[in-house]
Amino acid sequence: MAKITLLIHCADTSGIIASVTSFFHSHKGNIIYIDQYVDNENKTFFMRLECEFQYEIKLNELKNKFEYEIGTPYNMVWQLFSSDTRLRMAIFVSKYDHCLYDILSRYKSGELSLDIPMIISNHEDLKHVAENFDIPFYHIPVQNGEKNIAEREQLELLEQEKIDFIVLARYMQIVSTRMIDKYPNRIINIHHSFLPAFAGAKPYHFAYKRGVKIIGATCHYVTDELDAGPIIEQDIARISHSHAVRDLILKGRDLEKIVLARGIKLHLERKTMVYDNRVIVFT
Amino acid sequence: MAKITLLIHCADTSGIIASVTSFFHSHKGNIIYIDQYVDNENKTFFMRLECEFQYEIKLNELKNKFEYEIGTPYNMVWQLFSSDTRLRMAIFVSKYDHCLYDILSRYKSGELSLDIPMIISNHEDLKHVAENFDIPFYHIPVQNGEKNIAEREQLELLEQEKIDFIVLARYMQIVSTRMIDKYPNRIINIHHSFLPAFAGAKPYHFAYKRGVKIIGATCHYVTDELDAGPIIEQDIARISHSHAVRDLILKGRDLEKIVLARGIKLHLERKTMVYDNRVIVFT
Amino acid sequence: MAKITLLIHCADTSGIIASVTSFFHSHKGNIIYIDQYVDNENKTFFMRLECEFQYEIKLNELKNKFEYEIGTPYNMVWQLFSSDTRLRMAIFVSKYDHCLYDILSRYKSGELSLDIPMIISNHEDLKHVAENFDIPFYHIPVQNGEKNIAEREQLELLEQEKIDFIVLARYMQIVSTRMIDKYPNRIINIHHSFLPAFAGAKPYHFAYKRGVKIIGATCHYVTDELDAGPIIEQDIARISHSHAVRDLILKGRDLEKIVLARGIKLHLERKTMVYDNRVIVFT
Amino acid sequence: MAKITLLIHCADTSGIIASVTSFFHSHKGNIIYIDQYVDNENKTFFMRLECEFQYEIKLNELKNKFEYEIGTPYNMVWQLFSSDTRLRMAIFVSKYDHCLYDILSRYKSGELSLDIPMIISNHEDLKHVAENFDIPFYHIPVQNGEKNIAEREQLELLEQEKIDFIVLARYMQIVSTRMIDKYPNRIINIHHSFLPAFAGAKPYHFAYKRGVKIIGATCHYVTDELDAGPIIEQDIARISHSHAVRDLILKGRDLEKIVLARGIKLHLERKTMVYDNRVIVFT
Repeated sequence: MAKITLLIHCADTSGIIASVTSFFHSHKGNIIYIDQYVDNENKTFFMRLECEFQYEIKLNELKNKFEYEIGTPYNMVWQLFSSDTRLRMAIFVSKYDHCLYDILSRYKSGELSLDIPMIISNHEDLKHVAENFDIPFYHIPVQNGEKNIAEREQLELLEQEKIDFIVLARYMQIVSTRMIDKYPNRIINIHHSFLPAFAGAKPYHFAYKRGVKIIGATCHYVTDELDAGPIIEQDIARISHSHAVRDLILKGRDLEKIVLARGIKLHLERKTMVYDNRVIVFT
Repeated sequence: MAKITLLIHCADTSGIIASVTSFFHSHKGNIIYIDQYVDNENKTFFMRLECEFQYEIKLNELKNKFEYEIGTPYNMVWQLFSSDTRLRMAIFVSKYDHCLYDILSRYKSGELSLDIPMIISNHEDLKHVAENFDIPFYHIPVQNGEKNIAEREQLELLEQEKIDFIVLARYMQIVSTRMIDKYPNRIINIHHSFLPAFAGAKPYHFAYKRGVKIIGATCHYVTDELDAGPIIEQDIARISHSHAVRDLILKGRDLEKIVLARGIKLHLERKTMVYDNRVIVFT
Repeated sequence: MAKITLLIHCADTSGIIASVTSFFHSHKGNIIYIDQYVDNENKTFFMRLECEFQYEIKLNELKNKFEYEIGTPYNMVWQLFSSDTRLRMAIFVSKYDHCLYDILSRYKSGELSLDIPMIISNHEDLKHVAENFDIPFYHIPVQNGEKNIAEREQLELLEQEKIDFIVLARYMQIVSTRMIDKYPNRIINIHHSFLPAFAGAKPYHFAYKRGVKIIGATCHYVTDELDAGPIIEQDIARISHSHAVRDLILKGRDLEKIVLARGIKLHLERKTMVYDNRVIVFT
Repeated sequence: MAKITLLIHCADTSGIIASVTSFFHSHKGNIIYIDQYVDNENKTFFMRLECEFQYEIKLNELKNKFEYEIGTPYNMVWQLFSSDTRLRMAIFVSKYDHCLYDILSRYKSGELSLDIPMIISNHEDLKHVAENFDIPFYHIPVQNGEKNIAEREQLELLEQEKIDFIVLARYMQIVSTRMIDKYPNRIINIHHSFLPAFAGAKPYHFAYKRGVKIIGATCHYVTDELDAGPIIEQDIARISHSHAVRDLILKGRDLEKIVLARGIKLHLERKTMVYDNRVIVFT
C-alpha cells in the first residue's frame, strides 16, 4: 500500500478543498488525514493531506496530473512526498553533549525514521559519543577568520552525502548566508531561551539577572537574522529565585533536548510549512 | 452573511470528505474550517465543518438536500446548526460560589454568546450572587427522600425556559437518570480531581492522603455512572507535600473554574462530539 | 493566639539562623515556617519566618528587643508584621473588566483577606461592576497633557483612605515617578506578555507576528522603567499558528487574571522581597 | 571544605530549629540551606539542612555529639550524610530502552554524581546499550515459577557490589517483598500513568479507553502494594482524541524518562523523606 503526504499553499478562494479531495477520490485514494488553515491577514490557504492508495502509484504521473488539474488552476505552491523516501539528516555539534545523546538515543530506539550519515563538529570533544553510536564523525575546526574554509568543507560533505536537512544541536557557531541559502527552512536550531526573549549569547545569565520565573527553549529554522527565524516549537520550565545560573543551565538541558526532538519530528513528518516567518504546524 | 456548522459521524469509507466539500461548494458555500478524525478501532469517521454563504440560506432546504445527497447515501448521523441560534444554559449550584462568579463574569464580559435564563439551587446561599448579576434565581430545596419532587420542579422550569444545556457548577447533588435522559450529553459537570483518579466525594482529601504531586480538575458530560461520563477537558496544578487539604481546595478553585469555562465554550461552539464514552474535541 | 511574620535581609554571615530562631524560642514563640535564601553573587542573606505565640504579645516591645538583640548586631533590614493587620488595596482600571471581575469575585468569596476601599478609573465603563460588588468607584479622567492633575487627585484619595498597595488591573496609563516613589514595590501591574518578551504596547499583536508557540502574562512591581520592574509571577498558555490576534487576546484574559491574582496573594501574605530588581518569593 | 546534609523527623515541639541551628553554629558550621515542614495532622516535624565547615570534620564525632545533644533529647529519627560519599545505583531493565538511554546519557554527561556498577535484566535485548556505555550487564532470566532463583542471584550481586539503591527503568517484573525489605524506600520505579489513575498493566490502553485529555508518569518508591508506594515526582502531557494508543506510548516515553530522572536526582541529593506513605520533597 502506498501513502503520500501533500503540502499546499495558495491564495485563498472557494472550492480548493473540494477540488483537492475530489482529485484524490477520483484516483481511488483514501484520505486519512486532512487539515487546513487560512491566514486571513494574508488571504492565504494552507493544507496538509495524507492519502493512502490500495495499489502501487506512479508518483511522477500522479504529480503531473495534480499539477495539471489542481496546481496550475489554483496557482498553488505544493509538495507531494511519498512515504517511501527516507530523509537524511546531518547533526552539527560543538561541546555540549545532551542534545546529541538525546537525538542518537531516539535514533537507535527506532523513534526517528531517518538516516544520520554524519555528525560535524568544530571540536573533537564529542567524537566518542559518535563512535559509541556508530555514526561517522567529521572534525572540521573553525579557525579565526577562516570560517569560509571550514564551511566549504562542510558543504562538500553535505552535498556528497545528499543531506536533506541539518540540525544544530547546540552548535556554537553562526551559520553563514551561503549555507542558509543552500538549505532554506531546512536548518533547525535549538535556542536556549523563550524567544524572542534573550536572543543571542548567554540567555540563562540574562534570564537570571532579569529575575524571570519561567525559562524556555525554542526550536526554529535558521535565517540570516540571528535567533529570529520561524519558530517550530517552544516549551518552558518553572524556576524560582533560588535557582542560580548553573541551575538554569541544568534545568534547561532537559528543555532543550525535548524541544529540539519535537522540532525534528515535526520537520521529518512534513508537518511544518513556513510562511511570512511563521511556521504552520499541522498536528 | 450566513454561517453554518456541521457535525458528522458515520462508518468510515472512501470519498466522504470529497462528497461533503463538493456539496457545499456546489451551494456556493465557502468552507472556512474543516477537521476530521477517524476512529480506527471502531472504523468510524467524524467531521466538523464551518461554511459561510454570501447569500441568505434557507436552512431547512439545505438540510433536506444534505440529507438526500449526502446523509442518506453515507448513512450518516449529522447535525447542522445555524450560527444565528443562541443556546440557552441553566446553571445548577449549591454553596460554592467560585465557578458561579466565574461563569457570570464571563457572561457579563461578553465572552459567552448564550442566554442564562436561570440559576437553580438547593440552597439560598448564592441568591445574592445571582441578584448582583441580574439572573433569575430559583431555590428548589432537595428534601431527604423527596428528591423526586424537587426534580419534577426543576424539569418543568427547564422545559418552560427552553433550556438547551445544563451546567453543574459545583452542584452537590447527584442528577437522576430521568434528567440525564432528557438532556443526553447536554449536562456538563466539573469534578474536582484528575479523573479517573479520585472519583466520588472528597477528592482533595484523598489526593492529600495519597501524596500526589499534581492535582487536577475534569469537565465531563454527566452519565448514569458517577464521574464516569465522557471527558471534555482536564487541567492540572502542581502541589507539594507542604500543601494541606485546605490549600488543595484553594488551589483547586482556580483549576475548576478555568476547566469548566473551557468545557462550556467547547460545547457552546459545537466543538464536541461524544462517541463510545469519549469526546472528540475539534479545536 | 498571636502570629507574626518576619522578613529579613542582611549581609550573609554565619550564625544568623541560629540567632534569629533562638530569639523567638527564648520569647516562647513557636516557629511554624522558616525559609531562607542566600544570594551568593551579592553575598546577601534573606529569610522569612512565621512564629506563633500562646500569649498576647506586645508588638512594639518585641520589635525593640529584636532590633537591639538581632537587627543591630547583624546590620539587618527587617520587617515584622502582626497577622492582625489587614492591608488596604486600591484597584486601578480602565476599560477591560476581566481582571476586575476576578479580583472582586475572589474578594467576595473570602479568598482575599484585605480591604478594598476604592476602585479608581480614567473611564466610567466599569462603574457598574464596582457598584454590583459594592465598592466605591472614583472616576478620575486623565486629560491630555494634564496627567498631573489627575494624579494629584489619585494621591489624595490614596492617602485619605490609607491605602497600603495598589493593583493596576489592566490600567492603560503609565504611572508617574511621583506615584512610584510614594509606593515603592507596592504597585502591582499585570502585563499581558511573557516579559521581557513583548514589553510595551500590543504584545499579543507582536506575539502573533513573531509566530511564538506560547504566550504569557507577567505580574510585576512597577518601577520607573516601563515593564522592567521586578517579576513576582508568570505563567503561560500554549497557542498555535491557527490562533488569530483576537484568539490570543481571549486566551490571554484567563492567564492575566490568574497570574495577577497569584501576585496579589503573594504580596498580601508578605511572601515577596525585592532585591536587585529580582523578587524573592517564599512559598 | 567539608559539607554535610542532615535529615530529621520527630514529634513537633517548640525550639527544634533553634537547637539544631545553634548546634551547628557552635561547631563553626555555616548553614547554607534549611527547610522544614510540619505535618500538622501527625504532629510531626521534618527538616533538611546543609552545612559547610571550613575545617575538616570528624564525621563520627559530629554524629555522636549530635545524637547526644539533639537527637536523644528530641527523640529524633535523623540521618547525617557527608557530601564525600558517592552512592552506588543498580539499574533493572527489561526490553524498553528509552529510560536506560536517558539515565546513561546523563551519567556520561556528568549530570549524575553516582556510580553505576551494574545493569540487571531478565532479557538480553539491551545488552548492547550497556556495552556502548561501558556498564557491566547481567542477564538474569526470570523463569516461570522460579522467580526465587533469579532474585537470589540479583540480591547476591547487589550485596557484592554494595548497591545503595535500585532504579527500575521500565523493569517489567514485580519485585518481591524480600527485595523491598532489603532496600526500603530505596527502590525507585517509574510507572507510566498519573497514579493513582491506571495502576497496574497497560495504563496507556486504559487512558485511551477512558478518553482522558492528559496522560502522566509517576516516579515512586516501591512498596509491597503494586503501584501504591510513596510518590516522589509526577508530570503530565496533554493529549487529544486523535492520539491512538501507540501515540500515547510514544508521547509517554519522554514523560517517563524525565520524571524518572528527576526522581533519581532527588533521591541522590537526599532531598526526599518518606513518612506515612507520602514523600516530603525538599527542593
